[in-house]
Amino acid sequence: VRRVDLVLTGLGNVGRAFVKLAWEKRGLCRDRYGIDLRLKAALNSKGGFLASRASDAAGLADLPAAVPAPTQHSAWHPGLRLGEALGEGEPGVLVECTPTDIRTGEPGRAFMTEALGKGWHVAAASKGALVLDFPALSALAISNGVRLKYSGATAAALPTLDVGEVSLAAASVSRIEGILTGVTNHILSRMEGGIPFAAALKEAQDIGIAEPDPSLDIDGWDTACKILLISNAVAGTGFRLADVRREGIRNVTPGDLKQARAEGKAVKLLGRFIQEGGERQIEVAVSSVDRSHPLYGISGTNKAITYFTDTMGTITVAGGKSDPRGTAAALLKDIVNIFRGV
Amino acid sequence: VRRVDLVLTGLGNVGRAFVKLAWEKRGLCRDRYGIDLRLKAALNSKGGFLASRASDAAGLADLPAAVPAPTQHSAWHPGLRLGEALGEGEPGVLVECTPTDIRTGEPGRAFMTEALGKGWHVAAASKGALVLDFPALSALAISNGVRLKYSGATAAALPTLDVGEVSLAAASVSRIEGILTGVTNHILSRMEGGIPFAAALKEAQDIGIAEPDPSLDIDGWDTACKILLISNAVAGTGFRLADVRREGIRNVTPGDLKQARAEGKAVKLLGRFIQEGGERQIEVAVSSVDRSHPLYGISGTNKAITYFTDTMGTITVAGGKSDPRGTAAALLKDIVNIFRGV
Repeated sequence: VRRVDLVLTGLGNVGRAFVKLAWEKRGLCRDRYGIDLRLKAALNSKGGFLASRASDAAGLADLPAAVPAPTQHSAWHPGLRLGEALGEGEPGVLVECTPTDIRTGEPGRAFMTEALGKGWHVAAASKGALVLDFPALSALAISNGVRLKYSGATAAALPTLDVGEVSLAAASVSRIEGILTGVTNHILSRMEGGIPFAAALKEAQDIGIAEPDPSLDIDGWDTACKILLISNAVAGTGFRLADVRREGIRNVTPGDLKQARAEGKAVKLLGRFIQEGGERQIEVAVSSVDRSHPLYGISGTNKAITYFTDTMGTITVAGGKSDPRGTAAALLKDIVNIFRGV
Repeated sequence: VRRVDLVLTGLGNVGRAFVKLAWEKRGLCRDRYGIDLRLKAALNSKGGFLASRASDAAGLADLPAAVPAPTQHSAWHPGLRLGEALGEGEPGVLVECTPTDIRTGEPGRAFMTEALGKGWHVAAASKGALVLDFPALSALAISNGVRLKYSGATAAALPTLDVGEVSLAAASVSRIEGILTGVTNHILSRMEGGIPFAAALKEAQDIGIAEPDPSLDIDGWDTACKILLISNAVAGTGFRLADVRREGIRNVTPGDLKQARAEGKAVKLLGRFIQEGGERQIEVAVSSVDRSHPLYGISGTNKAITYFTDTMGTITVAGGKSDPRGTAAALLKDIVNIFRGV
């Protein structure tokens, strides 16, 4: 059994779900994969929890309960910095769950850069640094002989990257299409029932699936980030966020959906990678798909991705939880697979 | 670039498709994965092709064209045995494509046993030995420090094992359901149009998708083999073929399909793994699934599999070519992934 130290950055919904899940799955990871996960530290912008050497070997198992009032916890250190949390011992895995900032990439970029530089692997759920600066981060991981994994940033529990990289090995992918953002697909599904965009958005915010500032999702940024990361990993492209032709769903009307339905089609916000001749491009576009399209029936908050290949035909993966626990499960999967060499 | 010698057993449709594909993808495998594939030998029950040291480094690139009249080929050796083909050099990968015999497991069992014992990895498309004797073969691979991969035996280009083993790492799978045999799904789809079973089977034989002896498919054996192998790999069960409760589609009538349709359901031949309480079982059963089931819309020769998990929700993979080229692509993927450590 190999001990694996984890340091978590970000104590929002995903970070807390990860702490809880890692604790629940500790026995399974030890028995099935021979790795003994230990949460060594968990930081937010105010400070962090740091497990003492003498503490329970589980690390900070009671941390989720403590988060609402961290200063009450005996392991809370105001102003704790990542460098202190990583420490000098055997490197482990940085679990990066800070909020996505697609303008600066921070604070994720600084955290990942520091951790990779110290020989820590990274499993990331935040997208900002990855879409702005993937080549630099990837090169840093390679030069330090460690892994940079980001299933949690590419549709969470829906296995987009694994399928593209592992299952399609030696195939050529000419096209990728995905419904990659649960919120926008949910809003479009509701609008099919005749509800206007603004009301469907408000409803989604009221039930907690859309953010108070919904722009990242409904203007197509979230889908853009995901198709970019997937395309770069699977098709070997080198796109940056500015390369994505992008539209959102703000201007879609119930009438558009009604007309599509009358033509036997469904309206979806698709992230797309297209290779035609020597041309390769990625885009996020509101698209009408007909009944024969593999993504036609993907409704509500469901997500799915379709790979079009030369030798394996068309392969679609659908489903996967979209909540913080699903994202946490994707992070845990990446951690396990790092130590299995996958 | 690492040279990887391949020895192929079985020169039927799948074996020949593999030779062709490996030749086509040789440049891609070298550039993308750093492995230089070389077909060293290819055997059937009569003898085999053996690349001479002096021959083209590509090995037996013109072999598919030679197969109809192998004795005309300069590299054909009547009565060539596997031991001579494997030789004494650096071990590579045995690509096992002999016909599936679920009663004896031969000749695949003998070939795989010999190759594993000599330190060769195995990528298998034939199922017989795997469903009869997986524990022994797996133990032999482990004791020799080599890999035994069998995507080609578990629905070919549809990535069933990869998703279960890699993408669902650290999740618990409580249920697996799959449409795993293209022929039976095609026949059921045709019967929905009112064609009786016998006529739909004859039609499938006439267009070459059903075998002259169709029992392996239509009596559920093929689905049984696949769900068995998938369940053993993903859920850690230790089932053998005799453990599968199995039914086929011979007794399904167009009336059954019509009634299901009237109830808003579709009839499918499903392979299932079910865990309830401490009980685990696998079965092949004709099942009516309703519109909300992920496999409801999988029709024609399409295949799909759904994993029900504790932390990642429900994940369905659908599609993937069912022809010999798709199976060859699955074999090639396994070979690449062996050398990537996946």
